[in-house]
Amino acid sequence: MATFERTQIPIKDLTNGDKLNLTLFRLTGDRPGPHIHIQSSVHGAELQGNAVIYELLKYFKENSFAGTVTMIPLANPQASINKIGTATLGRFNSITGHNFNRNYVDIIDEMNFDLDAFIEENKDQGWDDLKKTYKKTIFTLLKEYQDKISPRGLSENVKLNLVLQKLAASADIVLDLHTGPIATRYLYSAEYQKQSAKYFLFPHTLLIPNEFAGAMDEACFSPWIYLHEALEEKGIRHPRDVEAYTVELGSEEKISSVEAREDARRILHYLCSKKVIEERPDIIHGDQYHCPLDQYKTYYLPQGGLVEYLKHPGERFRAGEALYRILNLSKLESLENLEDCTLEVEALSEGIVINHSPACSLGEGAEVMQVMENPTKWV
Amino acid sequence: MATFERTQIPIKDLTNGDKLNLTLFRLTGDRPGPHIHIQSSVHGAELQGNAVIYELLKYFKENSFAGTVTMIPLANPQASINKIGTATLGRFNSITGHNFNRNYVDIIDEMNFDLDAFIEENKDQGWDDLKKTYKKTIFTLLKEYQDKISPRGLSENVKLNLVLQKLAASADIVLDLHTGPIATRYLYSAEYQKQSAKYFLFPHTLLIPNEFAGAMDEACFSPWIYLHEALEEKGIRHPRDVEAYTVELGSEEKISSVEAREDARRILHYLCSKKVIEERPDIIHGDQYHCPLDQYKTYYLPQGGLVEYLKHPGERFRAGEALYRILNLSKLESLENLEDCTLEVEALSEGIVINHSPACSLGEGAEVMQVMENPTKWV
Amino acid sequence: MATFERTQIPIKDLTNGDKLNLTLFRLTGDRPGPHIHIQSSVHGAELQGNAVIYELLKYFKENSFAGTVTMIPLANPQASINKIGTATLGRFNSITGHNFNRNYVDIIDEMNFDLDAFIEENKDQGWDDLKKTYKKTIFTLLKEYQDKISPRGLSENVKLNLVLQKLAASADIVLDLHTGPIATRYLYSAEYQKQSAKYFLFPHTLLIPNEFAGAMDEACFSPWIYLHEALEEKGIRHPRDVEAYTVELGSEEKISSVEAREDARRILHYLCSKKVIEERPDIIHGDQYHCPLDQYKTYYLPQGGLVEYLKHPGERFRAGEALYRILNLSKLESLENLEDCTLEVEALSEGIVINHSPACSLGEGAEVMQVMENPTKWV
Amino acid sequence: MATFERTQIPIKDLTNGDKLNLTLFRLTGDRPGPHIHIQSSVHGAELQGNAVIYELLKYFKENSFAGTVTMIPLANPQASINKIGTATLGRFNSITGHNFNRNYVDIIDEMNFDLDAFIEENKDQGWDDLKKTYKKTIFTLLKEYQDKISPRGLSENVKLNLVLQKLAASADIVLDLHTGPIATRYLYSAEYQKQSAKYFLFPHTLLIPNEFAGAMDEACFSPWIYLHEALEEKGIRHPRDVEAYTVELGSEEKISSVEAREDARRILHYLCSKKVIEERPDIIHGDQYHCPLDQYKTYYLPQGGLVEYLKHPGERFRAGEALYRILNLSKLESLENLEDCTLEVEALSEGIVINHSPACSLGEGAEVMQVMENPTKWV
Repeated sequence: MATFERTQIPIKDLTNGDKLNLTLFRLTGDRPGPHIHIQSSVHGAELQGNAVIYELLKYFKENSFAGTVTMIPLANPQASINKIGTATLGRFNSITGHNFNRNYVDIIDEMNFDLDAFIEENKDQGWDDLKKTYKKTIFTLLKEYQDKISPRGLSENVKLNLVLQKLAASADIVLDLHTGPIATRYLYSAEYQKQSAKYFLFPHTLLIPNEFAGAMDEACFSPWIYLHEALEEKGIRHPRDVEAYTVELGSEEKISSVEAREDARRILHYLCSKKVIEERPDIIHGDQYHCPLDQYKTYYLPQGGLVEYLKHPGERFRAGEALYRILNLSKLESLENLEDCTLEVEALSEGIVINHSPACSLGEGAEVMQVMENPTKWV
Repeated sequence: MATFERTQIPIKDLTNGDKLNLTLFRLTGDRPGPHIHIQSSVHGAELQGNAVIYELLKYFKENSFAGTVTMIPLANPQASINKIGTATLGRFNSITGHNFNRNYVDIIDEMNFDLDAFIEENKDQGWDDLKKTYKKTIFTLLKEYQDKISPRGLSENVKLNLVLQKLAASADIVLDLHTGPIATRYLYSAEYQKQSAKYFLFPHTLLIPNEFAGAMDEACFSPWIYLHEALEEKGIRHPRDVEAYTVELGSEEKISSVEAREDARRILHYLCSKKVIEERPDIIHGDQYHCPLDQYKTYYLPQGGLVEYLKHPGERFRAGEALYRILNLSKLESLENLEDCTLEVEALSEGIVINHSPACSLGEGAEVMQVMENPTKWV
Repeated sequence: MATFERTQIPIKDLTNGDKLNLTLFRLTGDRPGPHIHIQSSVHGAELQGNAVIYELLKYFKENSFAGTVTMIPLANPQASINKIGTATLGRFNSITGHNFNRNYVDIIDEMNFDLDAFIEENKDQGWDDLKKTYKKTIFTLLKEYQDKISPRGLSENVKLNLVLQKLAASADIVLDLHTGPIATRYLYSAEYQKQSAKYFLFPHTLLIPNEFAGAMDEACFSPWIYLHEALEEKGIRHPRDVEAYTVELGSEEKISSVEAREDARRILHYLCSKKVIEERPDIIHGDQYHCPLDQYKTYYLPQGGLVEYLKHPGERFRAGEALYRILNLSKLESLENLEDCTLEVEALSEGIVINHSPACSLGEGAEVMQVMENPTKWV
Repeated sequence: MATFERTQIPIKDLTNGDKLNLTLFRLTGDRPGPHIHIQSSVHGAELQGNAVIYELLKYFKENSFAGTVTMIPLANPQASINKIGTATLGRFNSITGHNFNRNYVDIIDEMNFDLDAFIEENKDQGWDDLKKTYKKTIFTLLKEYQDKISPRGLSENVKLNLVLQKLAASADIVLDLHTGPIATRYLYSAEYQKQSAKYFLFPHTLLIPNEFAGAMDEACFSPWIYLHEALEEKGIRHPRDVEAYTVELGSEEKISSVEAREDARRILHYLCSKKVIEERPDIIHGDQYHCPLDQYKTYYLPQGGLVEYLKHPGERFRAGEALYRILNLSKLESLENLEDCTLEVEALSEGIVINHSPACSLGEGAEVMQVMENPTKWV
């Protein structure tokens, strides 16, 4: 049976002195294995991951597993409580506009860490030991970085991202659970872990370059990319087995326990491929598609109006098909030209709808829809 | 064929000097008949009425009708453009908190209008002439009221409500098209027009007292209630044929042209009962329920958490059935008591869900759900 | 020396399970005396009262006083933490638009309390005992009311207002500390306590009717107005010595410790008149003005633009003097008519500026300025 | 006398079909000279620049000048009308978080423009002709870029930035008028134009690297930096006389005509150094300080509370002096330790306050203050 620990981590002191806390669950399996770090809702309105964490807790309570799983639901409480009306304004710091998933730090690069010296010193270790040493190094660097930048205080976003990044420093697998606005299920995966990504059985995967752009997954895999590159320059090859994913679990501002059970099964299917669990979950799934990030395209509204979505998340479309229709009655000048007040916007290339705006009333230049263009079927 | 006129009415001068305008369509039928005033989106996120106006325009283009129809889509442009992120903050003035549908004026009462003198002077007129005279009087009183209150300027809400109320002063039938948050179709009807209300064939009707509480429908029917009461005191009876409704067309921040065609047919079915059109639309409809406003009840969240809705708009429930479930993982202290982090809230009485919050992430005390309790089936 | 107690009262459970709390300080003096209830920041951006509470704590630490003083700083923590950007959106519930100072309950009226029976039963008590009995009754009624309305949960605003109202039920003096937007010092006082109000030595006092309109002060004095009226009908006269004030301490989103010391001195000057303290603070003050609430007038922007305030809070003006100027460069059509892009708005009557908007960029119909017209000098 | 032209440029189509427009004033002097492009309020709450434009219009109406001046007040109308309550949320796109002053394009780099070929083709031209040719090239590249990125529509921010950048493509001098939150006057100047910057006589100047980081000033000077570098590689030297500045005119959400006259005089003093006007304005000014951007430091709140600012914009402080004080009454456990509820935050190094937050109620990690550390006095 799993060991269960619960820790509260103070993350923000509010105006009135009350505290916001992270709640961290640590489950330890009955045999050695990797450390899996799962967090959800770094964007405050992206909530389905919490329902998935609940399903994973149920699974790990009843089933044997290898290694350690740490899980942080509502990993950005400020973002989840920051509401205007019924809307959660949880995507970015509302003072600065900084995206809560873009302030992680490329720690090896930022601290000018001398990887050659590190390898020189540790190259005789086996891969497991080397990994352990490197993880500790990453953690230490993150602490040093925090000390370096904090003499005048630490910005809210940076603190949150550093706390999470330090918690994930010892992880072999990092799953950052998000959602889109109105969205299908999809995965962000670095190119190098593409073959593993397939095991999530997600219908859609966006392949991102093996590079740092500020997100949690990138911050977690970047140090390992640098390490492997430096090792390989010296002719040393080790398995690229530290992985990090951004997992997009449908639409924001919604939880569904039915869908959460299915989402959890897909994550477990992936963890089975990593030998964390033994029995492979039985999943009925359709075709899987992927494309490089630069084929993930955004449509912007060419005029203001009320938007009716004609193609829906997960739906395929051909070039020239109408994706959405704009209604703008003020353009109506006579009953003869009733059609003047609608405009259908057509797809430029064939593709799959990944997500669309949750809004209907939009002005010119708003993001309306994001699509995979010319996706490749995974075989 | 219908005559079509389009008028732009400046409604707000913006900071930079640009103007927001109302667009008013006036369609005149091929024979005399009542004046029907239709407006939508006084609450900025409640948009389906605009798609319905589009369908009504299509109908009136092709079909003969009696009287005059005026239609104002996006009747509160400031409320529809007032966005934070993708959310439309269109329910109330964001400086004052005043609901955009609660600043209409009870003009007869407000101006201390002498109804007895009015009746004395006009009692020999037939009902049609008396109505015409009274409508002009209402319009004049509204103008006088505006002059009276505006020497130091006019608040944005009051101006909007006065402009709309003046446009509706000559109407026999007023339809104020709204939506709920996530909602079914329902109608607000004053008690006195209950028999007419049935012709909308809406599944749910809330019967409001024949009183003024600041809303458009009330502001439009109040003067007529006062007139009929004063007439009846003198033993004069005329038909109570001026009617006003708040028509709730499903969920906010969404338009659906399929549903709009159905919504338009229901409105036309009602208008057919008023002899505006001749051919009764064929509508397949289910049972109709109504209840007095004081049986329309709100559930508030007893603790913070993530809400999963278990009963949906339009769905019946029995007392004791779970309406929604709250997930709050921070309450989890051990794997043994996994159920500690969910709470199901049960219905106090049997009823029908009318609407629920569009949000999932909510704090204690938020409005979660509104229901009709113990509704009566219309026979 | 004063006895000091500190109590934390949970007031809201957040989405993530963290709690917001009220902190209540109770100071008991060295001799019997009235109970004084002081709360601040029921509107979240109105903060100076907290600095004043800090100064009062310093005073009561060092000086002898009669009775009990309870103080609640940041009495509405949700409203103070609800920020978009640097702005605190703390005036009303952002879902419903309900003003946080308008949901108190007129408890005697709401519960149809039988005052005649109460008087019959208790009329032989002396005034001190009768007050004690009545305070307990008010508290009991508030609890019963809460039970009555809460079976489907309690709205956030109603809960907060009930918690505060119950805490104040035993008070003889209630001070609800607020601020205006950009404002001078002013007081809301009921007519009946006008003579006492003068002791605050505030430059401006708005005299409100002895009626209930939903605010804290009104909710606190209403039961006593009803009691005195009922007593007087029976020919019984007791001193009207339970008082409640809304105290407006300058501008929002700002604290000043220098001004707080002066504010505290004025409150102590008032408390001295109530024999709570013995030594009257020495205060240099100017003229004091008052007017009835219906002479407190709002100016609304007649067109959009950028506003430059020409008269400032506390400043006197004559009819015809320019109060503010609007700059709107888009109106400029030629260099010859440079003055076309400015508009000066003049005062309709003589008066004193009480407050103006904190904004410069405003649209037509926004509240710009509030003034006392034709104020009366207090002699 | 100056020639005056006024152009309206549609910039955004709103939900209801109304348009937001830029108003562009073009004044042509009585003799040849540079083109000066002035825009204000790209951040919607930063308004003082409009009052300055009004003063410049007055000056240019009455006085002779060389060249052409184009001025765009309220250059981002959407940002200026985007209000919640009285706050203008005008710093970034509220859907995406993108800062309105960070989406300009580094056009030479972005389009891989072949500068060597350009120089080869045009090197025989004199500097005036070469500049003219290069300006045209920049404009053409911007149009090509826009065509390239717009097949699926253009995001609101990108469109605005491109429209402004195209309007400024022909300018020799670009002044982008901003303000801070609560701020002193200061200037952002690229290193290369440091000597010119001094002529603004501003008390504070931040020297930014000659690099592109997305802002208007950088987008305007970058192409010229590239050109001069490429020319100099070929041994060709021309004067670096195209300049661009971000000019910070005090505090947001405020206009002052008195200060605007002073601001305008400083701008005219700079323009006099460029021979645009002949008579040098007489300005009494104090010391001028500058520092490189990396000495411009931000203080973040170490705990939540109410902030009282002890040092003010423009004020010098020594290391160890208290900059601001936090009041948090919930920390008070006994009257003995009243000082427990305040915390004074001290300066790490000596410096000058440039700006501070407009808020008082702030949570941990909020930006509180920005300072120049160890500034250098300009001699």
